[in-house]
Order: sequence, then C-alpha cells, then structure tokens
Amino acid sequence: MHTDAIARIHASFNAQSMMATLGAELVEVSAGLVRIACPILPSTRQQQGFGHAGLTFSIGDSAAGYAALTTMPLDHEVVTAEIKVNLLAPAKGDQLIATGRVVKPGKRLCIVTSEVHAVTEGTETLIAILQGTMVPVAL
Amino acid sequence: MHTDAIARIHASFNAQSMMATLGAELVEVSAGLVRIACPILPSTRQQQGFGHAGLTFSIGDSAAGYAALTTMPLDHEVVTAEIKVNLLAPAKGDQLIATGRVVKPGKRLCIVTSEVHAVTEGTETLIAILQGTMVPVAL
Amino acid sequence: MHTDAIARIHASFNAQSMMATLGAELVEVSAGLVRIACPILPSTRQQQGFGHAGLTFSIGDSAAGYAALTTMPLDHEVVTAEIKVNLLAPAKGDQLIATGRVVKPGKRLCIVTSEVHAVTEGTETLIAILQGTMVPVAL
Amino acid sequence: MHTDAIARIHASFNAQSMMATLGAELVEVSAGLVRIACPILPSTRQQQGFGHAGLTFSIGDSAAGYAALTTMPLDHEVVTAEIKVNLLAPAKGDQLIATGRVVKPGKRLCIVTSEVHAVTEGTETLIAILQGTMVPVAL
Repeated sequence: MHTDAIARIHASFNAQSMMATLGAELVEVSAGLVRIACPILPSTRQQQGFGHAGLTFSIGDSAAGYAALTTMPLDHEVVTAEIKVNLLAPAKGDQLIATGRVVKPGKRLCIVTSEVHAVTEGTETLIAILQGTMVPVAL
Repeated sequence: MHTDAIARIHASFNAQSMMATLGAELVEVSAGLVRIACPILPSTRQQQGFGHAGLTFSIGDSAAGYAALTTMPLDHEVVTAEIKVNLLAPAKGDQLIATGRVVKPGKRLCIVTSEVHAVTEGTETLIAILQGTMVPVAL
Repeated sequence: MHTDAIARIHASFNAQSMMATLGAELVEVSAGLVRIACPILPSTRQQQGFGHAGLTFSIGDSAAGYAALTTMPLDHEVVTAEIKVNLLAPAKGDQLIATGRVVKPGKRLCIVTSEVHAVTEGTETLIAILQGTMVPVAL
Repeated sequence: MHTDAIARIHASFNAQSMMATLGAELVEVSAGLVRIACPILPSTRQQQGFGHAGLTFSIGDSAAGYAALTTMPLDHEVVTAEIKVNLLAPAKGDQLIATGRVVKPGKRLCIVTSEVHAVTEGTETLIAILQGTMVPVAL
C-alpha cells in the first residue's frame, strides 16, 4: 500500500476517541486486512468480569471498517451499514486481537468479515466472528 | 416484576464497568423490556465526531440482554450468543436511548430485538435496530 | 398506492418462478408493507416434515424486498444485499404468512424487517423474524 | 468419519423434499464440512432470471446444518437457530455449490459458516457468505 493510504488509516483511527477509551491500537494495515489489538481494561467489562460484548464488537467492527477503507480512494470514508457478531467464548486473557478482512470490495457496498481472538500467554482462542457491510461515503 | 428481580438487574448493570465508561444508565426495567440511556461522550466517538458504532451496539446489546434477563429465574444469567445491528443514521444528538425487547423467551435460547434512538431537543430519530439471541447460563 | 405501482409489484412477483414453486401468493401490497402467503407443500419440507428454513426465508425475504420496492420509483428494482433470520418455532400448520415492512427507505439502502407466522385453524404463531438491507438498482 | 455417520447425513438429506425440489445433491461429507451442489432450475428463479435468494440461502443453510450434524452424536439432529446471508453477486451460471463449515462445535450451540459459489464453465465466483448458529436436538 502507498504510504499516504496507510497514513490516512492511522489518522482516522487516531481520530476515533472510542479506540483510545478502549485502549485499542492499530497493529497492522495492509491491502484488505487490518488488525487492532487491545487489553481488557478494568473499565470495559461485563458483569462477570470478562470483556464486554461491546468491546469485542467495537474492535471487530473497526478492524473490518478499516480493512474496507484500504480499498477506497483517498477522498472516501466508510461507515458501517450493518454487521453481525457471533460470540464463541468469553473475552478473557492478556489481550484481544481483531482481524478485519475484505471479502468483496465495491463502489456501493464492501462486504467484510472480522475475527476476534483472545490471547493468553501466547495461546490464541477465537472468541468472535463478524460479517457485515461497509458503505463508502464521499468526503 | 418482583422487586428482587428488578434489583438484580440493577446490580448486574452496575457491575458492568463498560456501562459506566460509556456513561450509560438503566432508565426502565419491566417484564420483557429494558431501556438504557447514555450521552455521546467526547470519549466514545468515531472519526467524524459521531457516536461510535460500538457505543450504539453496546447499549443496544445490553438493553436486549437485560430484557432477556427479566424473563429468567434468579439463579440464571444471560450471555449474548449472537446479535446483528443495522445502523440507520449517525449517532448524534443530546442522548441515545436503547430499548431492548424479548420476542420469544426460552429455556435454551431467548430471541430479542433492540432499537436505538438519538434524541435531540426532544425529537427522537431511530438510528439502529438489532436482532439477536441470548442464552441463559446457570449461576 | 398508485395502481401502476401495485401492478408492477404483482408483475415482478409473478416473474419469480421460485414463488410459484413454493406455492406462494401475494396477498397484500400497500405502501411500505407486503404480505405473502403459502402452504407448506409436500415438496418444500425439511427432514422432520416441517417447512424447510429455506421456505420460511424465501417468503420472508421476498415480502421484505417487495415492501422495499413499494418505496422505489418505477424505473428501479431492488435486490437483497443481506438479510438475517432468527427461527423461533417449527414451520408447521395450514399456511405461512410473511409480512415485510420498510423500517427506513433510502436511495442507496433500504432497511427492512419481515415476520413469518404459521397459521393453524386460525391461530397464528410467530415462527421467524428477519432483518435486512435491500439495494435499489436502476433498470 | 464413520460410515454410519455419513449414511445418516445422506438419509437426512434425502428426507428433505426441499432439496429434491431445488435439484440439490450432497456432493461431499467430511468431518465439519459438507458440500451441496445444484443447478439453477427454471423453477427457482427471481424476477430477473437469476437464482432466487431463497435458493442460495436454502443450500447454504443446509450445507451449514449438515456440517454441524457431522459433529453430533447419532442420536441428535440439528435445527437452524439463526443465520445471516450477505449476497455478493447474482446467482447465475451452470451450477451453485454451497460449502458449509463448523467454526465452533458445541453441545448447546454450534457456530457455522457457509460459502456459495456459482460455477460457469469451470470458473467459480463467490456469490454469498453465511454465518449462523445450529442447535442440537435429541431425537
């Protein structure tokens, strides 16, 4: 990818205050694939002490959205039209890693998936899969 | 609803640190229906300054989950098995209100929906609809 | 609705050979709402003898798609971009009735829902709910 | 897989009259993966002459359900609790092939995905992806 295209993904990510609130970091940006990592902060839990579904969703959705954005011209943004998450296991461990991928790019709709893994002492467990639609919007 | 049943919903909600992080409050608990309100904090936004999809999802999911919990015996919790959100409009305004409803209760699966409205100067705009499955788990 | 707009919905429905194969009929067309009824034919069952999930889905999806089409100009068609179904109860009884509704019309995306009921001796049971996105396409 | 386990998948498939109506055939059964193929019959089309979304859904759902069934004991069936489809391209070509896969088996819930490809003169095009939940039921 062109450095300008990578830079604008980082700029957009840094402008999402939600990502900072969740402690999320952008750890990989390549054509059609974006990876976001975050800890499970004391401030983002559900009632049993695991990461909240909203945490898993937020990084899964953002990873998918930025994966879509890697396929767009620089004068376009993307917004999530719809996305579905199946939660497979509790969000517990040292870190969550969301990997967003483009299944089918498009000028009107971009179909994406995302996987979220929990990492504990180097062992990865798949905790969620997402499938959705991103829509390009001209800036 | 019995006061014990209402009290345990409040206790569970208060134990979700994510809700406090989002500034969310439980504003209504009745049989099969739960309402959660929250502001759009400076800390929960996406890159354009609107509320993050993860914010809308989090309160929509929690409202649906607690609506399901109103149908469960006191020795059960619920977890989200899967949920899908369609985002209809940007999350902007004075406040977001998520209304979760039980469509079909059940011992193995509880089917739920949620609507999220944005409120600006008293005018409500539907910004998201969710449809999902909650699963009871014995404590 | 204008009679031309109603007529083109009927014409499009009649052009869907799948609807005839399932024994489906268009029983109501109004602005933003379409209803399709069908029997549970011996030829559209799953392994236990109930209606196949694909039967419930097909009429639920078509009802939602035609509900969307009632909001479109006459020189546009719609196609399903995505749709999700939660199945609540077995498809058994005298007849299935799918009711599609527009939640939010739009030039790029039209958000829809559908409910499918099974009718047995006049009693209706909700057997499925669907939530999805229809996309207008110029003819 | 044990031949009894394979045989019962074939028996169940053959008991789904919907599959015969669609012209569908079970072309592969292995642990956690099932493949179903079908033509696009004149009787299973939408208004533009392409395969109906209900056709794509039906074989995608059945492939996912039978993939789940390969992970179940012989005294259990599965039913679809919920499933979502994103449609990527029109269903046109010589044949459709649905490939269902188990993402996470389980005693209460089995998480599955399915891909549907259209094949034209040997070239495969991905036309739909599905993600859903199958539920085991004791016979």
